[in-house]
Amino acid sequence: MTTEPSPDPDAPTGLLDRARQDYRDLAARGLSLDLTRGKPAPEQLDLSADLLDLPAGRHTAADGTDVRNYGGLQGLPELREIFAEALQVPVEQLLALGNSSLELMHDCLVHALLGMVPGAESRWVDQERIAFLCPVPGYDRHFALCERFGIEMIPVPMTPDGPDMDVVERLVAENAAVKGIWCVPKYSNPDGACYSDGTVARLAAMATAAPDFRIFWDNAYAVHHLTDEPAEIADLLAACAANGNPDRAFVFGSSSKITMAGAGVAFFGSSPANVRWLLAHNAKRSIGPDKVNQLRHALFLRDADGVRAHMDRQRAVLQPKFEAVQRVLETELGGTGLAAWTRPKGGYFVTLEVPDGCAKEVVRRAAEAGIVLTPAGATHPYGDDPRDATIRIAPSYPGLADLEQAMLGLTTCVRLVGYEKRPAH
Amino acid sequence: MTTEPSPDPDAPTGLLDRARQDYRDLAARGLSLDLTRGKPAPEQLDLSADLLDLPAGRHTAADGTDVRNYGGLQGLPELREIFAEALQVPVEQLLALGNSSLELMHDCLVHALLGMVPGAESRWVDQERIAFLCPVPGYDRHFALCERFGIEMIPVPMTPDGPDMDVVERLVAENAAVKGIWCVPKYSNPDGACYSDGTVARLAAMATAAPDFRIFWDNAYAVHHLTDEPAEIADLLAACAANGNPDRAFVFGSSSKITMAGAGVAFFGSSPANVRWLLAHNAKRSIGPDKVNQLRHALFLRDADGVRAHMDRQRAVLQPKFEAVQRVLETELGGTGLAAWTRPKGGYFVTLEVPDGCAKEVVRRAAEAGIVLTPAGATHPYGDDPRDATIRIAPSYPGLADLEQAMLGLTTCVRLVGYEKRPAH
Repeated sequence: MTTEPSPDPDAPTGLLDRARQDYRDLAARGLSLDLTRGKPAPEQLDLSADLLDLPAGRHTAADGTDVRNYGGLQGLPELREIFAEALQVPVEQLLALGNSSLELMHDCLVHALLGMVPGAESRWVDQERIAFLCPVPGYDRHFALCERFGIEMIPVPMTPDGPDMDVVERLVAENAAVKGIWCVPKYSNPDGACYSDGTVARLAAMATAAPDFRIFWDNAYAVHHLTDEPAEIADLLAACAANGNPDRAFVFGSSSKITMAGAGVAFFGSSPANVRWLLAHNAKRSIGPDKVNQLRHALFLRDADGVRAHMDRQRAVLQPKFEAVQRVLETELGGTGLAAWTRPKGGYFVTLEVPDGCAKEVVRRAAEAGIVLTPAGATHPYGDDPRDATIRIAPSYPGLADLEQAMLGLTTCVRLVGYEKRPAH
Repeated sequence: MTTEPSPDPDAPTGLLDRARQDYRDLAARGLSLDLTRGKPAPEQLDLSADLLDLPAGRHTAADGTDVRNYGGLQGLPELREIFAEALQVPVEQLLALGNSSLELMHDCLVHALLGMVPGAESRWVDQERIAFLCPVPGYDRHFALCERFGIEMIPVPMTPDGPDMDVVERLVAENAAVKGIWCVPKYSNPDGACYSDGTVARLAAMATAAPDFRIFWDNAYAVHHLTDEPAEIADLLAACAANGNPDRAFVFGSSSKITMAGAGVAFFGSSPANVRWLLAHNAKRSIGPDKVNQLRHALFLRDADGVRAHMDRQRAVLQPKFEAVQRVLETELGGTGLAAWTRPKGGYFVTLEVPDGCAKEVVRRAAEAGIVLTPAGATHPYGDDPRDATIRIAPSYPGLADLEQAMLGLTTCVRLVGYEKRPAH
């Protein structure tokens, strides 16, 4: 965060008057802009236009497999090879599956609830209480899965190095009901933090009361850099194995924000035992993933260098948008004491912190002026941000001009609500 | 069945001697042939070669949706329209989803176990005992889902008109633990039966002790005809609604055996309440199906007539294979009293009945001679065919010459085992 949010008690009333006038002007413009979700923009999807003609008549994988037919539960080897490096998973422990990593996280929860993960003493559904640690702010769809399955969520504060590991270590050590933790380790959703080597080492080594504890390692932004200094994170899977906890990590990834958001390929990587476990469950559910789409992706991306080159083109579209967000925030809110925000070096989001008790009202006022934001609170379990201070900004989808308009409008709402809530004196 | 299987006690010993010699000759040929699964042959997949270049740069659905991006949980309207007629589901109650209807059946079971289907008084997982009726012979993958979730399976005899409805009506009426029934209503797997209008009417109208009873209506072969007289079945969804049981039926279908087995589109159709229920669960799991593949299919198939024309081309490949199966069975086993078999008018399988206690041994001998068949018993819950008499033949995948070789080999094994088991006298 660049500044600490604390309304300046000496701010002149003129600031509120100006904010009110700016808001009236904003509302009068009848905007219709959307900053809600981390959706790729059409220009980003255009970068993968070749996928719309591939596999161009081909239907045979490198190993001779007819990709059109049933089978191949592990996914196409040549595509798994392309992603093994970025996801830090040995290719033989990496599965290429459907079009969504969220589905894989859902299904891993289902299989742990209704089956037994390696190391478990019973099905999770048969236990009195199950809880997951939720670093906050975090990703609302992770929280929605827990809520849907009745898994209790325990918030853990995020730091710039990942979750507060003192808190994590204490909670997992003292309570066997704590079965997992949600992690977006690189360019985290929404605050863009990257887990430090120390955080990864402690996650891999920590003692857990539950023998079947799992780290849901949602490496959604593994190659989604916004600067010339791509973040590197430590290899969790290797660290877990080295610490005698080989089955602790479930690694998830996908090409949704690399190629096409709805028509990409999702990946699961883990220990050999966990991979066998998921394959055994998938064998009952599926006659194999869409291998034609996997061949399409392998032909298009070619290799890990191909992914890097492609992500440079993605960055060329995204970086100006993230810069515009910073520019508007700095120009409009810098020095006001009303806001602090993140400067992510990758990923899809900027976190904006407004004075306590203001986030919901800012989002409401913005919506009234035609600017839709992710609901305030969505970054916290049960939609409950106790400070009501966190707003997630998703700059990817709108065009640059729309984005600037939306950000200006948003900052107007922050000024309006911030100065309105400022204690009278 | 064309004849009743009953070994002729007066058969001369010479028949056994000849069978033994034929089996030695068979084994000496070192065949490697596979009749196990209902996989489309490469020539069938070639019929959809255009899919490998589609959507040919297009990325916009009829309603303007960018199919490349997230969203669209119901699936592409133009594709749902194409399949609404064949699956007998109003388009607004039909969802187009992933690449496998088996996945949808799995997920409906999961959501009923961990959530509550409309009309349920509790989650299925919280009930002492859950059972499904399993018409036999049936589909091993249905049974595997039940087994994986600890759902008890109760076999019900099949008739040429569908399951024995006297048995079904009694079982569902007397026991609230009976939550569902597996049905492949048209060209059933494996015996090719088509449910009569009377069967459909009784399924829709019958009184069930369970308020949350569901018919899992796996209409896998809705358009998979092998003759000029395409079978029609009654509209289950409409019949359920007309009988005051609107939420009783889950309809499943897919294009796996229409276009590409691993890269098709699966469908779910049901009452508005059930569709809302599945969508609400899918909304937690998924950011939408692969709409690019759905557009690809819509462009390729065009409309319901396009599907019919395409299935005529499929039939041109399949019909000679099914005729070859009949020809070899008739020539080699006709009049022996050793076998009876079905003459399906569609679908993917032929059921061969051998004398009681012979099926496993026939399959074992065939495997030793290089001809792999679906394991005997797979057509029954828990792999247990109490009479050990049913063998499923899947003629689709091998080429015609291989298929004839495999069938000749199989009939040799039937003669060998049948005459060996014949009571000595």
